[in-house]
Amino acid sequence: MVMIPLPLHSVEDQQFSPLDPADLTLVHRGEGGSEVRRSILPGGVRVLTEAMPGQRSTTVGFWIPVGSRDEEAGHYGSTHFLEHLLFKGTTKRSALEIAQSFDAVGGESNAATAKESTCYYARVLDTDLPMAMEVIADMVTSAVIDPHELEQERGVIIEELAMDADDATDVAHEHFVARVMGNHPLGRPIGGSPEEIMAISREAVMEHYRAHYRPSELIVTAAGSLDHEELCSMLMTALSDAGWELDPLAVPEPRRNPEPAKITSIPGLEVINRPVEQANIIIGCTSITGHDDRRQVLAVLNAVLGGGMSSRLFQEIREKRGLAYSTYSFSAAYTDAGYFGMYAGCAPGKAAEVIGLLGAELDRLAQQGISAEELSQAKGQLAGGTVLALEDPGSRMSRLGRAEMITGEFQDIDEALSRVHAVTAEQVQALAQELAARERVITVVGPFENEAALGL
Amino acid sequence: MVMIPLPLHSVEDQQFSPLDPADLTLVHRGEGGSEVRRSILPGGVRVLTEAMPGQRSTTVGFWIPVGSRDEEAGHYGSTHFLEHLLFKGTTKRSALEIAQSFDAVGGESNAATAKESTCYYARVLDTDLPMAMEVIADMVTSAVIDPHELEQERGVIIEELAMDADDATDVAHEHFVARVMGNHPLGRPIGGSPEEIMAISREAVMEHYRAHYRPSELIVTAAGSLDHEELCSMLMTALSDAGWELDPLAVPEPRRNPEPAKITSIPGLEVINRPVEQANIIIGCTSITGHDDRRQVLAVLNAVLGGGMSSRLFQEIREKRGLAYSTYSFSAAYTDAGYFGMYAGCAPGKAAEVIGLLGAELDRLAQQGISAEELSQAKGQLAGGTVLALEDPGSRMSRLGRAEMITGEFQDIDEALSRVHAVTAEQVQALAQELAARERVITVVGPFENEAALGL
Repeated sequence: MVMIPLPLHSVEDQQFSPLDPADLTLVHRGEGGSEVRRSILPGGVRVLTEAMPGQRSTTVGFWIPVGSRDEEAGHYGSTHFLEHLLFKGTTKRSALEIAQSFDAVGGESNAATAKESTCYYARVLDTDLPMAMEVIADMVTSAVIDPHELEQERGVIIEELAMDADDATDVAHEHFVARVMGNHPLGRPIGGSPEEIMAISREAVMEHYRAHYRPSELIVTAAGSLDHEELCSMLMTALSDAGWELDPLAVPEPRRNPEPAKITSIPGLEVINRPVEQANIIIGCTSITGHDDRRQVLAVLNAVLGGGMSSRLFQEIREKRGLAYSTYSFSAAYTDAGYFGMYAGCAPGKAAEVIGLLGAELDRLAQQGISAEELSQAKGQLAGGTVLALEDPGSRMSRLGRAEMITGEFQDIDEALSRVHAVTAEQVQALAQELAARERVITVVGPFENEAALGL
Repeated sequence: MVMIPLPLHSVEDQQFSPLDPADLTLVHRGEGGSEVRRSILPGGVRVLTEAMPGQRSTTVGFWIPVGSRDEEAGHYGSTHFLEHLLFKGTTKRSALEIAQSFDAVGGESNAATAKESTCYYARVLDTDLPMAMEVIADMVTSAVIDPHELEQERGVIIEELAMDADDATDVAHEHFVARVMGNHPLGRPIGGSPEEIMAISREAVMEHYRAHYRPSELIVTAAGSLDHEELCSMLMTALSDAGWELDPLAVPEPRRNPEPAKITSIPGLEVINRPVEQANIIIGCTSITGHDDRRQVLAVLNAVLGGGMSSRLFQEIREKRGLAYSTYSFSAAYTDAGYFGMYAGCAPGKAAEVIGLLGAELDRLAQQGISAEELSQAKGQLAGGTVLALEDPGSRMSRLGRAEMITGEFQDIDEALSRVHAVTAEQVQALAQELAARERVITVVGPFENEAALGL
């Protein structure tokens, strides 16, 4: 079992020199011969890799630990807007050339803006890894953000927001998160509103780009068929060719403050009227942070309540009563805040009944706890799911990014499984009691003129 | 390069005896040490496996080569209804016990009903493969189809259909396929209509179950960490324990007739009024069958026209004009029919313009063909994508199923890549001309009172 801290300072012994492979830090040698390595390179650039024998592909991600929560008023949506614009051309490549680079080798490349981070990633055959590293490094360092391209892309983003607005389940999630997070910046939608996107200036986007796309914020993670040292060399070459200053003594930017934030939810019922066939219902509350030691307790709670076909929600709402096709529970954990919720999609005339059933299941968990059989079942589910997920290099690449950005520690699989194994039924009930006692947010998207039409 | 026929008759030498491993037929030894094997077992049960060294998981699928196209009037939706009911309990297991079996090991299990087949599949750690085989075999052989459970599940399916009906893009695809396939059974929606589901009787579902869930129709495919002989033994034991008669001399049911069907599309414009923010547009026509030698030509055509970020549709409609977030082309090939289409989601006021642009790109492809650079780019895209996809055991499991059910031949990766490599620009243009000359179906789902409101 291994749990390895990932320090940002006092790291002289982790400084990397392409000339001296002995400087590499081997974080962990995993099962099946996989090797996790980490280096802090000149400029404070962090690189974490996991070499997986037997793979022919590599997934690589370039992370900037900045997301929509970091935007100031007047800049809402700028992180996501910038993510789109990085594909629209650099000083070396047109938008078409960027697209052709990946299409020509059958690779997948995309980017994702989240609330606390932005990631540009690609999955390619290992022989195409140098190309992928070079093109993503070019986008991250040398985007042009041409004013004409920016105007075209404004229209594309407006259509992306319209597509999301046409998905009633997405709309329910967005509204739920806004109210459960209250006025905290984590409550804002990642993409901004159409009005904000129409109003955003090139200067706001450029400001964001200049402020955060810097060596000391950049984290590169990769998993699959790779050599750590070669990947670090490619990266250093690409970044210095692009004109980035890479001070050998620089250290990474500090991580976010893990102190739990004070969140004031807006509790109670919100009904959003949409002319759809199903009522989309979410009930939930604030929850633990991404640093909280009870993460595995919450994972077990979630598995028992709404994590699979044998979960209580699935059995009660779908199997016994035939009220819904889709019902589950979910949670999200950020550095200093988190939330927890339960979802069901049902016939509008059954919405009041389903709202009652969802709330009652959380209360029952708090009052009566879980059985020994449920505990053992949930542990098996989490353990098996963890091992299965790690066959995918993309999952491993993301795991390295999250470990570096949020917790600052790398857990190997045995450590992760032993933490799950240590969870007790008492801990699950205690956490259920804490969650059940919090003020609940209820969000319903469906064909309801007003709250009264729900018949609660 | 290997292209291996998969004969259904004269198969004495492929008969399997668990006592004599020499009876196994090695279809192909692939790269990285993978081994494809095929056996025709007693009862005419077909088993195809691909053992992949270095994997810890196995994906297994039980296929019945019957889908919604095979339903008769009064039974529409019964294939999909039956698929749901197989999870609701067997003579040995309750619905909860089936769900717990997979949840307890963190495995994924699900089923998919398609137009020509139904597949029950699971992905588990190799140590859980015996459990997965035993549970799925139990469902396929010994479902109870309890009348009370059936009534509950009717409600679940009605909610599944309502969920699909709330997705305007899904609605556009369903309506497009109905018109492009005209009165052919492939044009019907897989799940049936809510009215059909409300009316369907237990007897209709039972009839379907008894008629098709038989040894001579069953195909089991698996990929990942496995041993062919052990898997065949497990399967034979499970099927005979369930009381299936396994005649050593039985042969598989013949495959579907590959003779191309006569399809009469309902051409022209159909507008479906939905109060959504985006217009969902599809334009397309009938295309080649799953047996057609031009499958790789169509794949190249599709890649150039709308297969990636560098494709013509993406460049013209999204990059140059900022009219859509999502635009692509697609195709589907069944045994005796196929269709081809182009999609875009855009602002309602731009729908007429986008319809014009989509149609013009197909015409331009037919009139001017493709450049040598586009041809080479598309071949690289298809080759890389093929190799990347085969790292996933689930893809390999499905590939074995399709080869056995539809084409009756197994292509190894070198053969598949060499067929792509052989495609010429002239062949692509000739196929584009053929498609462009066919009558076009135009489907639009959006906030339009009538066809005139589109402003075409």
